[in-house]
Amino acid sequence: MENIGYYNGTFASLEQLTIPALDRGVYFGDGVYEALRVERHRFFALQEHLSRFRASLAFLRIDFMMTDAELTQILQQVADRVESDSQQLYFQVTRGTAIRTHAFPEKAEANLLAFTRGVPLADLTEYRRVTVLADMRWGHCNIKSLNLIPSVMAAQSAKERGCAEAVFHKNGLVSECSSSNLLMLKDGVLRTAPADAQILPGVTRAHFLMLARELNIPVDETAFTLDEMEAADELMITSTSAHGLPVGFVDDRAVCRRDEALLRKLQKAYREYFWDTLGISDHI
Amino acid sequence: MENIGYYNGTFASLEQLTIPALDRGVYFGDGVYEALRVERHRFFALQEHLSRFRASLAFLRIDFMMTDAELTQILQQVADRVESDSQQLYFQVTRGTAIRTHAFPEKAEANLLAFTRGVPLADLTEYRRVTVLADMRWGHCNIKSLNLIPSVMAAQSAKERGCAEAVFHKNGLVSECSSSNLLMLKDGVLRTAPADAQILPGVTRAHFLMLARELNIPVDETAFTLDEMEAADELMITSTSAHGLPVGFVDDRAVCRRDEALLRKLQKAYREYFWDTLGISDHI
Repeated sequence: MENIGYYNGTFASLEQLTIPALDRGVYFGDGVYEALRVERHRFFALQEHLSRFRASLAFLRIDFMMTDAELTQILQQVADRVESDSQQLYFQVTRGTAIRTHAFPEKAEANLLAFTRGVPLADLTEYRRVTVLADMRWGHCNIKSLNLIPSVMAAQSAKERGCAEAVFHKNGLVSECSSSNLLMLKDGVLRTAPADAQILPGVTRAHFLMLARELNIPVDETAFTLDEMEAADELMITSTSAHGLPVGFVDDRAVCRRDEALLRKLQKAYREYFWDTLGISDHI
Repeated sequence: MENIGYYNGTFASLEQLTIPALDRGVYFGDGVYEALRVERHRFFALQEHLSRFRASLAFLRIDFMMTDAELTQILQQVADRVESDSQQLYFQVTRGTAIRTHAFPEKAEANLLAFTRGVPLADLTEYRRVTVLADMRWGHCNIKSLNLIPSVMAAQSAKERGCAEAVFHKNGLVSECSSSNLLMLKDGVLRTAPADAQILPGVTRAHFLMLARELNIPVDETAFTLDEMEAADELMITSTSAHGLPVGFVDDRAVCRRDEALLRKLQKAYREYFWDTLGISDHI
């Protein structure tokens, strides 16, 4: 199949899948999610995603009774129903299904929704354009919650400005992008905002920092300003499907392209790590 | 019927109603809502709610093609299917149904979900308890969006502390409650936070301010501090179903009860306005 959806035990094509109107995800966005890369039906960095997922659930105090093994088994079934060798798998858990009242329902079992479809990895060659927006999000951006209106609005603004991403800043200090992290190279140092409540602790971000350290590239987890961003040697966008997209423009201003060798070295190290971890040696 | 649900032309009991998993409300909370009081199948302050609803839609740039008259006709059908003479009707509009990508889908029609059930108006006699929480919400709280996790978490904290509501503050300055506005009486003046981006511009809040002015009670739309809140003569919670609930405790500290005559005068004026506007003269 081209895509598949799953909800609480039922499989259906994504376009046909339905859920109860009283799922608290529908009217409160009361849930959390993860998105995973699936190459040749193998999950990349599953444990890191599950660990972050459990942290998000704990923050929202959602009782999700499934073990990691049970959840993984279901996600594997979801992935295996789609032919594509390069998938983006999404899953979310909401607090339950109940009549709408803000406080937690007395008796409600968490709902699991999952779906997947073929999505290629983003091309890493081309320098991309980003735009800049004020970060108006809530105070717990480290939680991967379903309350995503700020990211939706920012992604749309970026698209309308011909940009691949929108960079968020708070009072001039860069946090991250609408659905990715932003890493800077300056004077040979890899710098990015710290993994505090202002950003999502990206799995790919963490891997980039780990690989940089292995390559003896100094790492500085200190937020940089918009001015520092404009003066960067290189900027990279990281997410589950964007493995270090280079940034060449902030709106109409040409930026970066001052340390392409180091940029390409990091991209290459990441992709090697990616395929090695998956146990896939004959990728294109 | 006890309750009814409606989604894009289909009616079903609320527990049976389903929606597509790809409704953008499900995974982004990408929509807005309103909640209305319906007494004897008549809507209270419908125009004010529709006006705020259109403002929320405009902010999120959601194209909802229905006119107010068409929408009202559907909401009336929803309300008329439930016997109760005292209903809380809810409706939400999401951006559409599409494969999950943050930017707006190219072609998607907005989805209308509505439901109603019997819910009595809150009793106004008893002094209630509130708790206090830091306001961690996003920067556009004037938009009645479906991104409601902060309100959910706050309502649950309030419930666990035996409180009717949680009062939000930013750096000691009171904004509003988790799903209601907070009004203070002090030295004969009715004071509440201004209707800026920090609070939802409550329909009931606006009516209270209007009635206070008619009664020659001075109105001050300036946010008050937590300290000022504790020293209030009276505090009132207002929402669509809470027509000035008196606050007598902040956690375990007794507060207020210093100008009950004025509090009761405002409550009475509001309820008279409520029933008069509905054209109902023989309510209990």
